[in-house]
Amino acid sequence: VSNVMNQQIVLAQSPSGRVTLSDFALVTTEVPFRAADQVLLRNILVSVAPHQRAVMQEPTFRPRLVAGEVIPSSVIAEVVAGPPDGPAPGTVIAGTAGWEEYSAVRAATVRPILAGRPLVRQLSLFGLNGLTAYFGMLQVGCVRPGETVVVSGAAGGVGHLAGQVARIAGAHVVGITGSAEKNLILEKKLGYTHTVSRRSAAFPDDLRAACADGVDVYFDTAGGPILDVVLPLMATHGRIVCCGETSQYDTDQTSLPSPRGFSKSVITKSLRIEGFLVMDFSPQWGDALTRLRDWEESGQLAVIEDVRDGLDAAPAALVAMMAGKSVGQLVVRIRQEAGLQQKRETMFETL
Amino acid sequence: VSNVMNQQIVLAQSPSGRVTLSDFALVTTEVPFRAADQVLLRNILVSVAPHQRAVMQEPTFRPRLVAGEVIPSSVIAEVVAGPPDGPAPGTVIAGTAGWEEYSAVRAATVRPILAGRPLVRQLSLFGLNGLTAYFGMLQVGCVRPGETVVVSGAAGGVGHLAGQVARIAGAHVVGITGSAEKNLILEKKLGYTHTVSRRSAAFPDDLRAACADGVDVYFDTAGGPILDVVLPLMATHGRIVCCGETSQYDTDQTSLPSPRGFSKSVITKSLRIEGFLVMDFSPQWGDALTRLRDWEESGQLAVIEDVRDGLDAAPAALVAMMAGKSVGQLVVRIRQEAGLQQKRETMFETL
Repeated sequence: VSNVMNQQIVLAQSPSGRVTLSDFALVTTEVPFRAADQVLLRNILVSVAPHQRAVMQEPTFRPRLVAGEVIPSSVIAEVVAGPPDGPAPGTVIAGTAGWEEYSAVRAATVRPILAGRPLVRQLSLFGLNGLTAYFGMLQVGCVRPGETVVVSGAAGGVGHLAGQVARIAGAHVVGITGSAEKNLILEKKLGYTHTVSRRSAAFPDDLRAACADGVDVYFDTAGGPILDVVLPLMATHGRIVCCGETSQYDTDQTSLPSPRGFSKSVITKSLRIEGFLVMDFSPQWGDALTRLRDWEESGQLAVIEDVRDGLDAAPAALVAMMAGKSVGQLVVRIRQEAGLQQKRETMFETL
Repeated sequence: VSNVMNQQIVLAQSPSGRVTLSDFALVTTEVPFRAADQVLLRNILVSVAPHQRAVMQEPTFRPRLVAGEVIPSSVIAEVVAGPPDGPAPGTVIAGTAGWEEYSAVRAATVRPILAGRPLVRQLSLFGLNGLTAYFGMLQVGCVRPGETVVVSGAAGGVGHLAGQVARIAGAHVVGITGSAEKNLILEKKLGYTHTVSRRSAAFPDDLRAACADGVDVYFDTAGGPILDVVLPLMATHGRIVCCGETSQYDTDQTSLPSPRGFSKSVITKSLRIEGFLVMDFSPQWGDALTRLRDWEESGQLAVIEDVRDGLDAAPAALVAMMAGKSVGQLVVRIRQEAGLQQKRETMFETL
């Protein structure tokens, strides 16, 4: 690819305390070399998600991110070039790449998008967040009609969908967020039964009052001290779905002791606490996407998306998210969708 | 029941720190009144188990034990009298009663013993401990051939059976105990693959070395700091069976913070952590007892029992157990088994 450069957002330094804009750098490099089993992607949309902060702190399911590395991200991208048995050039796919204009990733890791739906929806409801909400609530949490479900980080990219999946499954849904504004959205737009603010001094009492029959499913995206508050409220045979611990990511202190009274609660109440990877359910993704699409089309499920424009908007979006200042799915559009085909042909005719 | 008194061991005071003999009192009371739906039991064998210490500290699945109350216990007992549709007088049953000569319990809560096996075995392999080991390892832990299983409290009443169930299921079994003497018994008599001592300074390294491929199932009877050591060794999709936390019972400090890095491990390794009550599996008890009996008869599974004589031996047995000085199932025989029928007839002819 001659004369085409690749803008990237890389980690400039590991955050000291809370993540700030100075922890990122915008760099310009060559378009990456594509190996024989890879596709070269031109990214259209990239995601902003707590995992990006988590991996600056410690290894997760991938190694810790070090200075100079591009920020990893779910992406919606157009295939520029690839192996003959891979997706054809011009195809728009979903994949895991980074905050950058061009990425080279293994062809086997990209997947088709759902036809006929907006591109941004492929990163939210029809992406890993929607699938995580779906399988976490239904297959891990095993929520049943009439049960009480608590969701922490309930206004987040996963949380705002998880609570709605539980409502559709017939549960009473209690959302925990950090602000009254978010709670209003959950109650008025997403059909949460109750909401409580974790920043209120009365938080434990508020939560207890909202869960008079105990908590059957706790869908935990926050971890940390909220889990300490929820544990004693769990009902016998309750399930805790460990989806994330966003409250523990934006710090350089790791391995905080938590939660208190852990084993005792698990033993005396026959609790099940479970983590999962949405990849574990990949054979069932097709069915899940069909149901999620039906719920959205019938108006049972609403998706909140917050789209920022320009690759250089991504760091500020992540900083705002970690400070609790975002609602729903945060997405950065790094390239306008219109005229994709035409631009590809003019720019990459030499490939 | 005229002229017959009831000796009981009651809690004299809640232990301050470690439990001692002075926390118990031997008292003599009337034989309890039997309500219409109850059976009057004359107890033969009572159990000594960590739960008896736990319930002096905090509520468990039953309310906290307070001064003056009899120590609760699994028992093997003879039915003295009961409702017409209950077990006939003279029948020997298993039930939940207390450290006392006579108990009145709901007839619906007693269950038959396994025919043709020693009475003491009804409290160990064919009692709640055997069933806990069986269902905890196979149904909650879901151990599979070739997996690595770690058992804490591996020489205890449940632990020494749980490790053998895992071995029979084809697992590599690593036992954690508090002494080299116990480890020798596990390796030589019970077929444990490896053992490590939790009191060794090299404990974390020893355990890591014994579990080179990671821990697929952790059968936890100890809780506390051992769980902190095991968590980072768990393999992806590992299962932690929360059976007890004996390391936390013999103290008046409750709700110790534990374990560290909990949510992170659960999330990044897709762990499942689960507590259970053996009652949850009661429809399958018959099948389980058949298999346990077959394993014992074929010599695949050995049972270690430590039987002390006389009701007044029970407190010292519990104190020794909590100090880590017991192996296998501790049982107190409060009445000789021989001549049960004859003694019953002579003593209770007026009932």
